[in-house]
Amino acid sequence: MSAATPSEQLGQVLEVGGPELSRLLARAERRLVELSEGHGRPLAEHAGGMLDAGGKRMRPVLVFLCGGEADGRLVAAAVAVELLHMATLVHDDVLDRATLRRGRPTVFAEGGREAATATGDLLFSRAFAELAATGSPGAVRALSEASSSLARGELMQRADAWKEDVSPERYLERCRLKTASLFEAACRLGALFGEAPGSEQSLARFGACVGLAFQLLDDVLDVSGPSSRTGKPRGTDLLDGTVTLPLILARRRDPELRRLDLHSVVTEPAQAAAVCDRIVLTGALSEAREQALRHVAEAKAAISGLELSEGRRKALGLVADGVVERYA
Amino acid sequence: MSAATPSEQLGQVLEVGGPELSRLLARAERRLVELSEGHGRPLAEHAGGMLDAGGKRMRPVLVFLCGGEADGRLVAAAVAVELLHMATLVHDDVLDRATLRRGRPTVFAEGGREAATATGDLLFSRAFAELAATGSPGAVRALSEASSSLARGELMQRADAWKEDVSPERYLERCRLKTASLFEAACRLGALFGEAPGSEQSLARFGACVGLAFQLLDDVLDVSGPSSRTGKPRGTDLLDGTVTLPLILARRRDPELRRLDLHSVVTEPAQAAAVCDRIVLTGALSEAREQALRHVAEAKAAISGLELSEGRRKALGLVADGVVERYA
Repeated sequence: MSAATPSEQLGQVLEVGGPELSRLLARAERRLVELSEGHGRPLAEHAGGMLDAGGKRMRPVLVFLCGGEADGRLVAAAVAVELLHMATLVHDDVLDRATLRRGRPTVFAEGGREAATATGDLLFSRAFAELAATGSPGAVRALSEASSSLARGELMQRADAWKEDVSPERYLERCRLKTASLFEAACRLGALFGEAPGSEQSLARFGACVGLAFQLLDDVLDVSGPSSRTGKPRGTDLLDGTVTLPLILARRRDPELRRLDLHSVVTEPAQAAAVCDRIVLTGALSEAREQALRHVAEAKAAISGLELSEGRRKALGLVADGVVERYA
Repeated sequence: MSAATPSEQLGQVLEVGGPELSRLLARAERRLVELSEGHGRPLAEHAGGMLDAGGKRMRPVLVFLCGGEADGRLVAAAVAVELLHMATLVHDDVLDRATLRRGRPTVFAEGGREAATATGDLLFSRAFAELAATGSPGAVRALSEASSSLARGELMQRADAWKEDVSPERYLERCRLKTASLFEAACRLGALFGEAPGSEQSLARFGACVGLAFQLLDDVLDVSGPSSRTGKPRGTDLLDGTVTLPLILARRRDPELRRLDLHSVVTEPAQAAAVCDRIVLTGALSEAREQALRHVAEAKAAISGLELSEGRRKALGLVADGVVERYA
């Protein structure tokens, strides 16, 4: 495995994706800046930082790679998907009382919870406005289904907090809702506006599998760190009560972990780090990482029958591989 | 002026609107219940109470009255508008830490802020999903514009909190964004799917004026009470730092009010009630109520040139009159 950082990975994808992909991404960036400047002072004030703070833009990249041609509607779809993603981040930061995101102060930190809640709502609204402008009800439906799933995933995570009997199946269902659904929508929108509408099912499946692998590896990284790369202390999921696959698998292997009442015992970062070490010792991380790799393989299989240019297939493969190769 | 309660007013509108209006409203209610039951346990758990707790259903009524015929898309539009309205209420309750709404525990009270934030997001998403199913990009655009405006209105209210130099014009702009925009969208959607699409501009204008009058009177009621009718203590706006027209006008008339630093002096309900009494003495409430009445007259004028059945015109007039006759 390579040890590429996210931005190096994006660089590789852009290289393979060719100048057209770079041009489309640049158009999406410009539109995001335009939105932050042109749609009322509040968005510029509060979300401006969020919009131009960058991020990996994985979902827009998927829209463009699945679309495969330069259609203005693809730019709208990419922007809509990124706006929806940002909306959920802004709301998450309110709930987590997070003060930093992508190395910059969060909307919550700068404006307080009222401004941040409203800014999230505004980003939601702009996402739908952007997509509605394409004139495609199917596209709006795809985005609203994803948006519903994201919210249901959040509710599920909340309902399952601290629970000891979360099954791997239920964990995966939560990942599907809260993460994979938007990756799936990105690919579906690309297919819908792209050059091969018939490929919608296969590309949507590709996106869902990549999203699942992405979330699985995120949960592995929360246990493994290093925090210097992830940008947050190890074990934040444990402190939140979020039961992830590494913990579920580790509990099966280690009776002491099984007996541990996380809610009362793990209340400080140092304790969380100690539990992380214990999880690592069980070998649960390798098992979770293998599951993620299987989802990556499934993603590639989903598009193996599609007629794609070699460049696009290779770029999609790089994106899929990239999600499990972070900080490896 | 009559002293009709909101439900009596709805009764009058239904009487004039005829059996078709009642049937359409019943269909919208059924759909709201269906959504609360059929779209994942979380929505049923958290928003079920919200969905069947009733409320005046003013916005759906406007959709149907502006539509004027029994089209399934009108039901979808009415449901979408009500879902969006509910989404904002759920988020408002999180921000206000409100425990009661329509006489029942809020989602925030029952599920906490995380569940309530996600439930609000879910209601937002379902609103757009519902409308996308009609296949009309114009309708989705109208809803997302309204949704953007609502959020911008919230941000504006937050930015203006406690400020002493909020002008009446800026106050009205905030009312337009945070309230009138959704009334306008309700009427626009009705026109869009209704029997006279050419009437869209006039009906949208009608909705905007009614919404403005509605918000103005809400702000008057916050000062006048009685709290036994409004269901909240007098002067909650003062305690929140929300600068409304009654306060703006009263400050012009009463130098002592002008000098009063609300932020530091008014921190308890009893103090707020005392300031309310002082505002009443200036006569500012009558002036604000007159402004609201002018917006009602403007609303009626906006549709005076439209060809409408007598029943529909009368019912629309009742809705418009109703917003300023609450608790009169």
